[in-house]
Amino acid sequence: MKNKICLISAEEQQERLRRIGLDGAALVSENFSIFYLTGRIFAGYILLMPGENPKYYVKRPLMDEGDDITLIRKPEDIPALPKGTTLGLELGALSYNDALRLQKALEADSITDISPKLMGARSRKTPFEINMMKTDGEKQSAVYQRIPNMYRPGMTDIELQAAIEHELRLEGCLGVFRVNGSSMEIHMGNVLTGENSDTPSPYDFAMGGEGMNPALPVGANGEKIKPGRAVMVDMNGCFNGYMTDMTRMYSLGKLPEEAIRAHECSVEICHTLAKMGTPGTETKSLYEKAKEIAERYGLSAYFMGHNQQAGFVGHGVGIQVNELPVLAPRSKSVLADGNVIAIEPKFVIPGFGAIGIENTYVCRETGLECITLAPEEIIPLQ
Amino acid sequence: MKNKICLISAEEQQERLRRIGLDGAALVSENFSIFYLTGRIFAGYILLMPGENPKYYVKRPLMDEGDDITLIRKPEDIPALPKGTTLGLELGALSYNDALRLQKALEADSITDISPKLMGARSRKTPFEINMMKTDGEKQSAVYQRIPNMYRPGMTDIELQAAIEHELRLEGCLGVFRVNGSSMEIHMGNVLTGENSDTPSPYDFAMGGEGMNPALPVGANGEKIKPGRAVMVDMNGCFNGYMTDMTRMYSLGKLPEEAIRAHECSVEICHTLAKMGTPGTETKSLYEKAKEIAERYGLSAYFMGHNQQAGFVGHGVGIQVNELPVLAPRSKSVLADGNVIAIEPKFVIPGFGAIGIENTYVCRETGLECITLAPEEIIPLQ
Repeated sequence: MKNKICLISAEEQQERLRRIGLDGAALVSENFSIFYLTGRIFAGYILLMPGENPKYYVKRPLMDEGDDITLIRKPEDIPALPKGTTLGLELGALSYNDALRLQKALEADSITDISPKLMGARSRKTPFEINMMKTDGEKQSAVYQRIPNMYRPGMTDIELQAAIEHELRLEGCLGVFRVNGSSMEIHMGNVLTGENSDTPSPYDFAMGGEGMNPALPVGANGEKIKPGRAVMVDMNGCFNGYMTDMTRMYSLGKLPEEAIRAHECSVEICHTLAKMGTPGTETKSLYEKAKEIAERYGLSAYFMGHNQQAGFVGHGVGIQVNELPVLAPRSKSVLADGNVIAIEPKFVIPGFGAIGIENTYVCRETGLECITLAPEEIIPLQ
Repeated sequence: MKNKICLISAEEQQERLRRIGLDGAALVSENFSIFYLTGRIFAGYILLMPGENPKYYVKRPLMDEGDDITLIRKPEDIPALPKGTTLGLELGALSYNDALRLQKALEADSITDISPKLMGARSRKTPFEINMMKTDGEKQSAVYQRIPNMYRPGMTDIELQAAIEHELRLEGCLGVFRVNGSSMEIHMGNVLTGENSDTPSPYDFAMGGEGMNPALPVGANGEKIKPGRAVMVDMNGCFNGYMTDMTRMYSLGKLPEEAIRAHECSVEICHTLAKMGTPGTETKSLYEKAKEIAERYGLSAYFMGHNQQAGFVGHGVGIQVNELPVLAPRSKSVLADGNVIAIEPKFVIPGFGAIGIENTYVCRETGLECITLAPEEIIPLQ
């Protein structure tokens, strides 16, 4: 039985390989790339040779061997490449030691980086992938709409976050939050209220927060949700290996006028950018438009943070939460059909806290199609 | 104010640096190592030069600069090293591209791997670190003892797991589960019941399970907890950046005799190994003793799995869940004072499921001191 290891159809796999567009030998090793090429995780490697079907070298789990599947204990069990071969590796993710070990194990003459081609392909989702992400958006939206029922008077930010995590898990959220690179860490997302929102974090997320411990300094810090304050909820939308990214606002009692205006500004930015974004649009023009609208509202000083500002207003999302393209002032990318991007115009108002929404959009010929459809208004917690 | 960036005392930091024992220039870059050297996470680098105080190059969060703190945008902002310097880098963790970029940015003549020295030092915990881990053990034990109250009739494995996660988070569990290497992924641990326990996983954990989705194929798969079955709970013990590792068994109704004997065997292995393990003990002798006891019980075929068996019975634990030393048949390590190891003799009985316990121990002159003190017997769920 051919391709038993591959849970996506042979056609879907071929389409993804075509989008990657490799022109030489390559060995795929990272979990997120193995998932992209097979729809599943296994421990091992996928060997791609021009004009040949993918070959799978599997360490775990135990499975039946076949034409395309070979069980191995270590990479040295993979047959050597023809003399003089340049081997493509994921040099943006693979450790230095592992990269050299794989080169030696396969007796490659030299190595070259396939990370950019893989990231480029993954940024343009296939119709199958977009359907996966729409399912995520529906489930994530369903949980967000139950948040007012999860609130109990006197709750802290972390207590509300734990309640949301619980509901997400019961809805089928896998919990993992795959991040590109090793420097960003988070547990299931971010719930922010009050002054804590203005605490800078070491991580390159749009918003900060002190966190519960210096070992994970981001997000909720145990601050009580106070009357007249809002709660920003930006939680994990991974139900099937893909994820959507959505932020919504919740309020306790009456919010100050400035916060309500900042929320309106955020919604206006999302709607304006959604109309602007078509294949060919420069992503930096989306960032500039967002900044321009924030300026018009007089909110520049609070745009994407206050004490520490993030340098982007949106980012690609898919198997990982920080994919291409990035909506940033110096970005050189243009939108492509099938890009899926999160747009998150957010503000931190000193003395009040974080406010703003985030949606995930699919780039179509007609504009950006929103796939995170929970109501965008500020929802009262009681 | 000197060392404001460092949340551990100068003496504690010096002791850790002494244990690492570098003899040349080194640039520390990974979150888990930055946490080890400072007690906090920041985005950036720690430059270690022989005979000098550590220098911190910080990208985020924004902080005051000082003698030892320099804010940078990118690694190229770090001053060049003296000509001819060999630079130590974490080549076991740093990506190939990042390693070469750092070498170039600092104009190092060559690079050398400091990962083994860092991992070696981290495996021998200081008294301060051991106290942190004792706190983890206490909190984790407190939550485990509340598990019978979390059970509701008709629950599935994932529903019970979500309830335990919720309680852990309210107790202060940070949720993150730091793992060495990029190949292992898990969300907050593993709850296993019934046939699912015998499904091999791609990950190198002691136990498998199908998981809820091929995107994260490990652990609970939605199987209902049935009368006459047990539930194995092996959940996240990270409350402060360190973590303990503990597994306990829960039962629904009367368990078969074979399962009860396997549990007794697991407890006997733990107690026997705890008495054997002193500084100088070969870790492979601990593995061999565990295997020998399993054989005496006639349980070899189920030891550390059935369809797929794990090749170890224990492992170091600390900032990451898979530290040194490893208790495996071909391990060459010997126990050292201050090692903290998890011992997890587990069995998978076909048609019944997983059974066995796990404790975290500190290696002392007098033997292994258990720091996960929840009762070891099988606890009824109702």
